[in-house]
Amino acid sequence: MEKITLSHGSGGIQMHRLIDSLFLKQLGNDVLRLKKDSAVVRFGGKNLAFTTDSYVVNPIFFPGGDIGMLSVYGTVNDLAVCGARPLYLSLGLVIEEGLERTILEKITRSINAAAKTAGVKIVTGDTKVVEKGSCDKLFINTSGIGEICYKGLSTDKVRCGDSVIISGPIGDHAISVMSRRDGISFAAGVMSDASPLNGLIGKAMSASKNIRFMRDPTRGGLGTTLNEIVDKMAVGIMLDESAIPVRSGVRRASELLGLDPLYLSCEGRVVLVVASMDSHKVLRAIRSDRRGKSAQVIGVVCAQHKGRVVLRTSSGGKRIVPMMSGEQLPRIC
Amino acid sequence: MEKITLSHGSGGIQMHRLIDSLFLKQLGNDVLRLKKDSAVVRFGGKNLAFTTDSYVVNPIFFPGGDIGMLSVYGTVNDLAVCGARPLYLSLGLVIEEGLERTILEKITRSINAAAKTAGVKIVTGDTKVVEKGSCDKLFINTSGIGEICYKGLSTDKVRCGDSVIISGPIGDHAISVMSRRDGISFAAGVMSDASPLNGLIGKAMSASKNIRFMRDPTRGGLGTTLNEIVDKMAVGIMLDESAIPVRSGVRRASELLGLDPLYLSCEGRVVLVVASMDSHKVLRAIRSDRRGKSAQVIGVVCAQHKGRVVLRTSSGGKRIVPMMSGEQLPRIC
Repeated sequence: MEKITLSHGSGGIQMHRLIDSLFLKQLGNDVLRLKKDSAVVRFGGKNLAFTTDSYVVNPIFFPGGDIGMLSVYGTVNDLAVCGARPLYLSLGLVIEEGLERTILEKITRSINAAAKTAGVKIVTGDTKVVEKGSCDKLFINTSGIGEICYKGLSTDKVRCGDSVIISGPIGDHAISVMSRRDGISFAAGVMSDASPLNGLIGKAMSASKNIRFMRDPTRGGLGTTLNEIVDKMAVGIMLDESAIPVRSGVRRASELLGLDPLYLSCEGRVVLVVASMDSHKVLRAIRSDRRGKSAQVIGVVCAQHKGRVVLRTSSGGKRIVPMMSGEQLPRIC
Repeated sequence: MEKITLSHGSGGIQMHRLIDSLFLKQLGNDVLRLKKDSAVVRFGGKNLAFTTDSYVVNPIFFPGGDIGMLSVYGTVNDLAVCGARPLYLSLGLVIEEGLERTILEKITRSINAAAKTAGVKIVTGDTKVVEKGSCDKLFINTSGIGEICYKGLSTDKVRCGDSVIISGPIGDHAISVMSRRDGISFAAGVMSDASPLNGLIGKAMSASKNIRFMRDPTRGGLGTTLNEIVDKMAVGIMLDESAIPVRSGVRRASELLGLDPLYLSCEGRVVLVVASMDSHKVLRAIRSDRRGKSAQVIGVVCAQHKGRVVLRTSSGGKRIVPMMSGEQLPRIC
């Protein structure tokens, strides 16, 4: 009898298969089938973006953040990468009986601060409490609504020669959570990158009308996100390893844990595919934001390697970067 | 050190206190503070209703339903009672590692059927998997968007002399879940009333422009919902016990379990406060819907008993019906 495993929630191959073979098969409609970070529907003559995310990160406090701020920024970012201005959030809490009220207060304050920082309003909520042992401390669902202000973002628009940009170093969030979980001393100083991207993305959108697609590389990391972009496409992506920003603490921790930084989740980074003629303009715009100072062009869309991501390694070799398989780090967000 | 208890998720006094003293205090804004079933915000020149609910019912299958259909109908109903036409739903799953795939398939089919029945589209989703023991089988969050088509519903509109209507028998859902949980044989035959109310409510709204307020009596039941309506108001509600529809199976199970049917949750009933001159029109409209055949006028808004709900008992006495305190039935929805 087939059972659901942690890999089904990893963001990688198994999750995509579950979504395709079960959820899309059963629930599929024109909107859901697009598998975007946010659904885009018409409302009042405008394009409305609608998204949802549940947060089950363990532990609920980690260097640089907590489950509260993560649940706000994660959903804000899922709206922003679809070209939407995030407006309203819902907040659904599932609390384990026995959680200290002071912890809930701390998380709620963090949610409030994050909502203020991101410029969104939490307008509706729900609170459930389950018996001790029936959930792990606290799970948070946030759903969000935004107004699409940049149209036409789609993987279909991606063309040969387009530039691939990342807004900052990868893997900080995953390693910061791991460090707190396993007490990894060699990751000391690595803080989660959890942050709202709507400001930075707004600057990029103002700088160019030729952004093809954006996605935040959360579960599954940069490697999986890039595979999602070229999946079933007539183009591939050639990545330049030496251009990909990775902090030394993240690199060191990854080596010692046997993890590939390309699959480590970020919670405050965005990958953009941009027409090459505008890539410098967009890069400059992103770098003008304090959250995008380390942005880099990390690759190019190419005619070779159709549907695949290929890494030109620092040592001059080439290797295929497949979509993540299995589960590297459960409950990272 | 104060801890979160099951009563904080019960829908009763402790939950309201937690919401007021923590969530509204920290996150409060003009919309959230209204504590409606759905937030109402402006979008594209129209009034948009937005709501969220997490479902943690145990067991996930019960007579007459399952967590999947419940998660669709519950959110559809939270939109409908605010005078909105439900349009789009999000679906956030938190799955316990080891859940059989066939169970997930069954729940997904049920979600799909419920969405079709209610006439809504599931347009966006999220899947998380947590380690065995970190959640209990399956939690579902659905958030929903609708368009307000009946304006002005508010407890502020409630006036002396208004009629209080319930659309059907109370407590079926709670007893059906309990019967499955505890194997209560004397509740045999009681099926959950979980069902979508948008059709029935649509008929009521077409029949009268003088509906003051609607709410579905879920957690905390009819007794708590009526208290929410008159809380801090200059009016009270006088209920007629003999008019309140309660199925014999529900009455019997309640007596044996020492439960008051007034606090048993429903998942397919709506309480309406209607101007008395229109109460017969509305009652007739509700009864014309197959889900409202047993609708009854069960009480009247009165000048006495300010802020309170008073029950005229079948034996001719009177007793105050306070808001529910503590937790009768954890994880009923």
